[in-house]
Formats: sequence, structure tokens, C-alpha cells
Amino acid sequence: MIYLDNAATTRPSAAAVRAAQRAMEQFGNPSSMHRLGLEAEKLVKQSRSAVAGVLGVDAAHIYFTSGGTEANNTAVLGAANLKHARHAITTKIEHASVLAPFKLLEEQGFEVTYLDVNENGQISLEQFEAALRPDTALVSVMHVNNETGAIQPVEQLKPMMKAKAPRALLHVDGVQGFGKYPLKPRQWGIDLLTVSAHKIHGLKGTGALYTDKTTITPLIQGGGQQAGFRSGTENVVGIAAFGAAAAETALEDHAAAALRERLKNGILEHIQNVRIHEAAAGQSAYVLNVSFMGIKAEILLHALEPYRIYVSTGSACSTHKPEPSHVLAAMGCSREEIMGAVRFSFSEELTIEDMDATVSALAKEVGQIRKYMR
Amino acid sequence: MIYLDNAATTRPSAAAVRAAQRAMEQFGNPSSMHRLGLEAEKLVKQSRSAVAGVLGVDAAHIYFTSGGTEANNTAVLGAANLKHARHAITTKIEHASVLAPFKLLEEQGFEVTYLDVNENGQISLEQFEAALRPDTALVSVMHVNNETGAIQPVEQLKPMMKAKAPRALLHVDGVQGFGKYPLKPRQWGIDLLTVSAHKIHGLKGTGALYTDKTTITPLIQGGGQQAGFRSGTENVVGIAAFGAAAAETALEDHAAAALRERLKNGILEHIQNVRIHEAAAGQSAYVLNVSFMGIKAEILLHALEPYRIYVSTGSACSTHKPEPSHVLAAMGCSREEIMGAVRFSFSEELTIEDMDATVSALAKEVGQIRKYMR
Repeated sequence: MIYLDNAATTRPSAAAVRAAQRAMEQFGNPSSMHRLGLEAEKLVKQSRSAVAGVLGVDAAHIYFTSGGTEANNTAVLGAANLKHARHAITTKIEHASVLAPFKLLEEQGFEVTYLDVNENGQISLEQFEAALRPDTALVSVMHVNNETGAIQPVEQLKPMMKAKAPRALLHVDGVQGFGKYPLKPRQWGIDLLTVSAHKIHGLKGTGALYTDKTTITPLIQGGGQQAGFRSGTENVVGIAAFGAAAAETALEDHAAAALRERLKNGILEHIQNVRIHEAAAGQSAYVLNVSFMGIKAEILLHALEPYRIYVSTGSACSTHKPEPSHVLAAMGCSREEIMGAVRFSFSEELTIEDMDATVSALAKEVGQIRKYMR
Repeated sequence: MIYLDNAATTRPSAAAVRAAQRAMEQFGNPSSMHRLGLEAEKLVKQSRSAVAGVLGVDAAHIYFTSGGTEANNTAVLGAANLKHARHAITTKIEHASVLAPFKLLEEQGFEVTYLDVNENGQISLEQFEAALRPDTALVSVMHVNNETGAIQPVEQLKPMMKAKAPRALLHVDGVQGFGKYPLKPRQWGIDLLTVSAHKIHGLKGTGALYTDKTTITPLIQGGGQQAGFRSGTENVVGIAAFGAAAAETALEDHAAAALRERLKNGILEHIQNVRIHEAAAGQSAYVLNVSFMGIKAEILLHALEPYRIYVSTGSACSTHKPEPSHVLAAMGCSREEIMGAVRFSFSEELTIEDMDATVSALAKEVGQIRKYMR
């Protein structure tokens, strides 16, 4: 199997699986006062420290959620509940779990500025600065884009905000970059940061929100778990696996870059009429987005399945019905480019030989599909 | 080990653990279009059918959540978003994950009627009927109380609502009764029903909301998973375990009743000055709440730990700091009764011998503590 859909989800690591199994045995409720409760709570605490360690933050500022989607909803809707909230800024290429709550806020009379991106998929800091207002309550800009791997200059936003929108909170959707590229909430002035377990070989159903601004309204209330900011009995199995996966992350691993380079060059060498969607500077090595012109990506995806090669069309996180990518559209791509866009996303489990095998399969199948579609 | 805290959380069953392990191997994203995605989606679908089967409802009306707390928040806050929403009715003995969102609604100008309970912990249908209004948008009454096991007559509510509050939705927090006592949403007119996996030997971090009223606003929005009603990549591991656990439930198992009876009679026979908090009619066999007068329940809880007997003081779902039980307070219990209340909660793993051993340990330790506290 050549699994090239790691931006959609990753295989749980051996350590994550072991941690999950242990947590199924130590099955107490972390809120219980007896020994079984304390044992379960210890697993949660260890994971909180592991996730905090990757970010260089205080473990008390990590709140576990049911995933990136809940964390993004919590950040956007929570910050909008602040008293001075009137206006927010985000980008046209955010994940649906950021865009959907912003749409809800707009329906409630909130004003939202959606920043453009250039053909590389990156925002303009000039446009960003011009959009800042004294009544801006929230800025939400993603770190690494899930479809193209474009990296936004999130470290440059807070200094500009301090001058022109001093009360605004900065939220960063860090799901695709967490554990792969540096994310420094304290140094960069990030108030709210979303991360997820299942993109780093943890389990689906667990994520976290880093924040030291718990004055925002919690999304989920109840028994007061996690200092009252995220109620509900903790998903100890998923949290334990998240901690184990986080502890294994290695920032700026060069393996992904070599894999991506090999695949990209192979495609360019062996297949005509393709477009690579990437940023010259600020590109994640974990994602390669390629438009095979004149081809429907979905057909190519299924043509690769007999080879046990698994890829994605645009974002996989939006149900089975693929809609034209809003990210590539914002980058100014043509309809043909969008329809033919395939996302390859990498992990350390892949080899250079896997890349060569993928190029061979692609060359053959792209040729076949183009022949039939003529 | 004698684990008598099954209302807080249960040990994952062998089948649930196996299902979780299989789901860690079949690690695709259910939204991915390739085979790995379809395999993962199949696990989710199987579990949805298993949970729906217990309730006798259409599988399409089961939405997986991160647990009972999220499902309760979704139901209460979602229904309050309906256009005609002005007033709601709930009870004084609901779980914190129902009471907290109602408190939030009250802060926003919503009117909430909190029904009293009698000394058995049960509501009065007369008071309920009198509280119904044409502008009542939501009724939320729990099925089995988590602290005392009192069962509310939830099957009798909808007919009264149809007459006096025809637009009101009925929500039932079914967490403690699901899989143990009949819950018939369709026959009883329940519009929204909360269930949880980790109370029936599944994993913490997974629950579900049954509803056929998806016009209510979703709590979590994004990629449009689960028909758009609950976005976010599904917690496939937790969901698979939930399905396996649901498939094993056996309604009205007589084992719990025998265990409860043995423990209750043993306590009454061997320990003086205790109060049993139970309902003569409508009592769950899975919970026994006993006040040991003149004793702090927390001290007794810790005194039982060396015997590897694990119990709870009131609700365990509200962090480590035990607050005086709002449930027992609503039942008119004295401060002394509340401070001395211990919850024993049962599962099929326990034996009659375990009950006798617990009575012995209780008799000895209650005697010791009372001696020291004199």
C-alpha cells in the first residue's frame, strides 16, 4: 500500500496504539476521586504535557477537544461572544470548520473580512493590515493549508494587530503544521491555536485548543472538566494516543521534503500538461497539489486504487461529495485546473521507491484516461 | 477489585476493545473517497445501526457526538435557536451538561421553568402540565437520574405537550438508562435523545444524539460530516467500540436488581443510621444511593480503597471537587444526608459475593469513622 492521503488522516503509530490499549485497561473516569480516577487523570495530564511540549507552552493552557473542528468552532464562536466583538478577519482558504462558524456569525450581524490569496495561496500582509480595525475582535488565519500546503506568515500578524486592533485575538488553525513545522504561540502572540491528533499518527476524534484566553465563552458546558473550559468526560483513549503521537513528532523532518521532491520531479518528467500548485517560499513538504489537465481527479483517484495507491481530490474533510475547491478557486485556478487537482500528502512511512512507483502508475493511468476522454 | 462506580464509567467490554483495535488498523478517514475511506465509513455505519437498533429508530437519525455532554448541549442550545423559542421546561435534578446550557440561555433572556422533584426524586406530572405554555420551545427531562437512579415518566410527557405546547420539542437525557431500560423515542414522541458509550462498556469520548428534528442549529459546523448536523472527522475508534457495546446490551437484565437488593439489605441489616434514597416505583436497579449519617462520604470512599472497593460520592462527572449534590438537595435531603451520601452503581461484572464483601468492609469502616468523629 502506498498511502498518500496523510493530510486526510494518518495511520496510528505503534506508540499511539499501545497508549490507547493501556487507556482501555486503565478505564477510570478522570473525575472520579478514587485511585482508578486518578490513574486515568494521570494519562490525561501526561498527554497534556506532551502536546504542550511540542508548542513550548504551559500545559494548563491545553484543552482537549473532539478534534480540530470542535477546536476551530470553539475559537471562532467563543471569541465572537466577547463584548466588543463587531468585526473579524479571516481568509478565503480556511478549512470549512473555520468558515462555517464565520458564516453563522455573519447571519447574526457580525462583519467578516475574507482576505484574498495570491496564486501561491498566500495572503498579503498589506491587505491584512488595511483590514484591521479598532473593533476587530478576532483574526483567524490558518498555518499550513490542507489542500496545497501553503504556509501563511502567522508569526507576523500579532505585531500589526497590536498597533491597529489592540483588542483582537489571534486564532491559528495549526492542524496541518502541528508537529511538522514550528508553531510558537507565546513568541508569535497566538491567543488560540487548534491542533489535531489524527494528522500526526494519533486517533481521529481528539484534538486540542491551546489558549490562555479562557474568558471566551466555552462551546460545550457541563460538569466543569478541564477547568470548566471544556466540559464532558475526557476521551482518555484518544487523549493518551495523542500524547504518545505528539511525543514522537520531529520538527522539520527532511524525509518529507525528499519524498515530495522525488514525486514532483517524476511527475514533471513523465507526464505532460500538469500544473503544480505551490508556494515558492513557505511551502509545506507534506503536501503536493497537482492539476492533471483534461482529467477529472476523481477518476484518477479510483484508477490508482488497484495499485493500492491512495490519494485525495482537494480536501478529504468535506464528505464524499467533492465540491470544487474553494482554495484553488481563491488562488485564481481555472475550472479545468480545479477539476483535475490531486492532493498527495506524505508521512515518514513512505519511501523513495513508493514515489517512483506512484509516478509510473500516474503516467500510465493519466495517459489512459486522457485517451478515453479525447 | 469491586468496581461499584459504573454510573461514572464502565470497563470497556472485550468486544468493544476488539472493535477499537480493528478500527485503529482500518485507519482511513470516513470522508475519503478511496477504499480506505469506505472501510472506515462502513465501521461508522455498522455502529450507527447497532445504536439505532437498541432504540428502534432509523439509523439515519443517529448522530455521533463526543459524548453525552456534547449531545445535551446540542439539544438544549439547538432547540433554543428555533424562531419561536422563548420558554423551556426542565427539572432541578438534570445533569450539569443540561443545566449549564439552560443557565446560558437564561443569561440571554430565555425563560426556564425548573420542575421540582419529590422525596423519591421524581417530578409531578401536574406541575409539568401547569408549566406548559404555547411559547414553550423545549422540554428537557432526564430518563434515569445519575445520582439516585430515579426514573422519570418520560413516556407520559409528549401527549401533554401536544395539547398545551404543540410546538415544543422533547429532549430526554437517556445516558444512564440507555441499553438498560426501554427507551422508545418514536412511540414516546421523544424528539431528541442523548446516549453515551462509556456507560455501557464502550469508550469515553463517544456518545450520540438521536433526532429527526435536524432543523435545530448544529452545535459544531464545518466539513458537513454526518449529513451536516455534526461536522468533524468521526471518532472511528470510539464509534466502532460504541457499536460493539450497544450490540451487547440486554434490556432489563435481572442481575443488577439482585446485586442491588443484596447490597441494600446487607447495609440495612449491618449498619445503623443509614438512609436509602430511592423511588418506590420507577427506580433503576443500577444505582443505590445511601446516606451514612454522621459521616463524610469522601472519607468513606477513601477508606474503601484499600479493599479495592470503588464507589462514588454523588455525581462523579463534576470534577474532583465534590459539591453538595443538587439532586439530593432538590429531594429535600438534609445537609447531613447529603454529606454522607455514597453512590453504588452496578454492572454485570459484579457478583453476589462482591456485595457481601462490600457490606463487611462498609460495616467495619463506617464504624471506625463514626468512632473517630465522635
